Amino acid sequence: MHIQDLQEAYLNFTKISKGDLEVSGLSLPIQYILSLKSKKIRPLLAIIGYRIFRNDIEKCMHAAHGLELFHNFTLMHDDIMDEADLRRGKETVHKKFGNNAAILSGDAMSILAYQHILKDCSQSNALDVLSTFSQTALDICIGQQLDMEFEERTYLTSEEYIKMIRLKTAVFLGMALQLGALIAGKNKAESTPLYEYGTNLGIAFQIQDDLLDLIGDQEKVGKMKGGDIIRKKKTILITKALEIAPPAIKNQMIELLHSDSVQPELKVLKMTELMTSIGLFEVIEMEIKAYFKKADDQLSLLNISDYGRDLLSQLSGHLQQRKS
Amino acid sequence: MHIQDLQEAYLNFTKISKGDLEVSGLSLPIQYILSLKSKKIRPLLAIIGYRIFRNDIEKCMHAAHGLELFHNFTLMHDDIMDEADLRRGKETVHKKFGNNAAILSGDAMSILAYQHILKDCSQSNALDVLSTFSQTALDICIGQQLDMEFEERTYLTSEEYIKMIRLKTAVFLGMALQLGALIAGKNKAESTPLYEYGTNLGIAFQIQDDLLDLIGDQEKVGKMKGGDIIRKKKTILITKALEIAPPAIKNQMIELLHSDSVQPELKVLKMTELMTSIGLFEVIEMEIKAYFKKADDQLSLLNISDYGRDLLSQLSGHLQQRKS
Repeated sequence: MHIQDLQEAYLNFTKISKGDLEVSGLSLPIQYILSLKSKKIRPLLAIIGYRIFRNDIEKCMHAAHGLELFHNFTLMHDDIMDEADLRRGKETVHKKFGNNAAILSGDAMSILAYQHILKDCSQSNALDVLSTFSQTALDICIGQQLDMEFEERTYLTSEEYIKMIRLKTAVFLGMALQLGALIAGKNKAESTPLYEYGTNLGIAFQIQDDLLDLIGDQEKVGKMKGGDIIRKKKTILITKALEIAPPAIKNQMIELLHSDSVQPELKVLKMTELMTSIGLFEVIEMEIKAYFKKADDQLSLLNISDYGRDLLSQLSGHLQQRKS
Repeated sequence: MHIQDLQEAYLNFTKISKGDLEVSGLSLPIQYILSLKSKKIRPLLAIIGYRIFRNDIEKCMHAAHGLELFHNFTLMHDDIMDEADLRRGKETVHKKFGNNAAILSGDAMSILAYQHILKDCSQSNALDVLSTFSQTALDICIGQQLDMEFEERTYLTSEEYIKMIRLKTAVFLGMALQLGALIAGKNKAESTPLYEYGTNLGIAFQIQDDLLDLIGDQEKVGKMKGGDIIRKKKTILITKALEIAPPAIKNQMIELLHSDSVQPELKVLKMTELMTSIGLFEVIEMEIKAYFKKADDQLSLLNISDYGRDLLSQLSGHLQQRKS
């Protein structure tokens, strides 16, 4: 079985699952955001976490869908906070339906997430499943708060940046895998390596995303090269660069970053040169490898079949192509 | 033991319970809204629901606090949606900290609510406790949505109004009582009469509030007489009045309600006269009695001690004085 089959099983499930809300004012924004194109990584991770241990994946579909609901709840509210007009190339919920609808439908989605997860719980695992989910849900809020606070700051350490992306995005991937395993009947200790695996994988891919923004194949990445630098986004690249650069180059970088007179494409080009000169990209590549290694180290702690290991390695490849 | 002792036990618990969030940007708004004066009815109800069956009330304090957190989460978001400047005589969270802080801290509070409730769950009751809580949490969102939709409507039936207040406020009271009982080890069927009891009590008190707004002792109620009529709020009074009034009086009422030339105090006086002329207040009193009766009918379904019955009757008296 390939993970494409697991994805398909999830998509079929969402097609037949009925709406839970009788009030259209609440459910239309939810249906809208769920209809936007997305890779649906989180439900896939939950299904993989379950499928590693059990065949009957139909018994974790609600929980998987709960994670997708929760993810979209965070997107809905983040878009209000960021005043974003577009999400996946379409109008954001608050632009289309208004702020109030986006706030309240988001709230409802977060509760619906719990309800869907509960549907796949049994008495023996509900406590573990729900506390694992809730802890990560809270971490995601803390990550979003850090992201907003960091935007106001002029300087950020690479460690702070990693902490933020760990909380805001990476732990969700780890939790999704672990949740699947918990629902499959594994206990917290047995399933924790999956959490660590997914989280470290998540960090590795986020750093890779940051790197690809600057030195990736432009067409493949699908957005303007160096967009993060032009928007002065404090990613791993710039935070790490300012840490390892000698004082003279560090000053040049800061000046260039905040200069309004340098034309954007030239700014990206010059910054790339400066970063190359201090060996930044090698350092970042090593960082990525270190997180992949941390993820892999967890695999030896897992008592799973070759089939399970194959699923996880397919997952790693699949995540590498993701852009969502 | 009086319910004042239960209230005090809860207040002592909140004093020693530490903050759960390391990020001050998230926790300051939460600490702020929790510090506003309030009767803390919902935790009290949960503790009563527990105390009816068990003595060791310290084992339900986290869950009780979870309900207070959830309630304040709804207030925080409702205030954004209603663009309210004041809450309990103080600045609302979004006025003081900004919309983004109120959105995100609210989100965190709703998750914290689940975490606190989970702390008092055992393997045997987690599934029932969490699904009972989640269902009501969703009902509250639906109630808030109906409230917003109803504000845009010119006409509302009294039945629609009751449906809205049931979902928006009453079911929370019923759920709080039931949650306490579930945590005390009762099963869903045994505890459902408490849910029905609290819900019907909640509706009765909301109708009573609406009535007191117009014909209550002004100083006791603590706000301007007939404020709902001046704000054209579609409460049980006006919805029911327009249903039972003969056509001529109905037209007079509608005209009066929407007239901008009649001075506010005179408007209230005239409306009161019209309402008196059709016997509205007797009808409303009967409605209130009917909901109290519905609540009382549930008591006979409950297998509880005289002590438990006494607690519930104290509760009923306590709720009658409430204004929060």
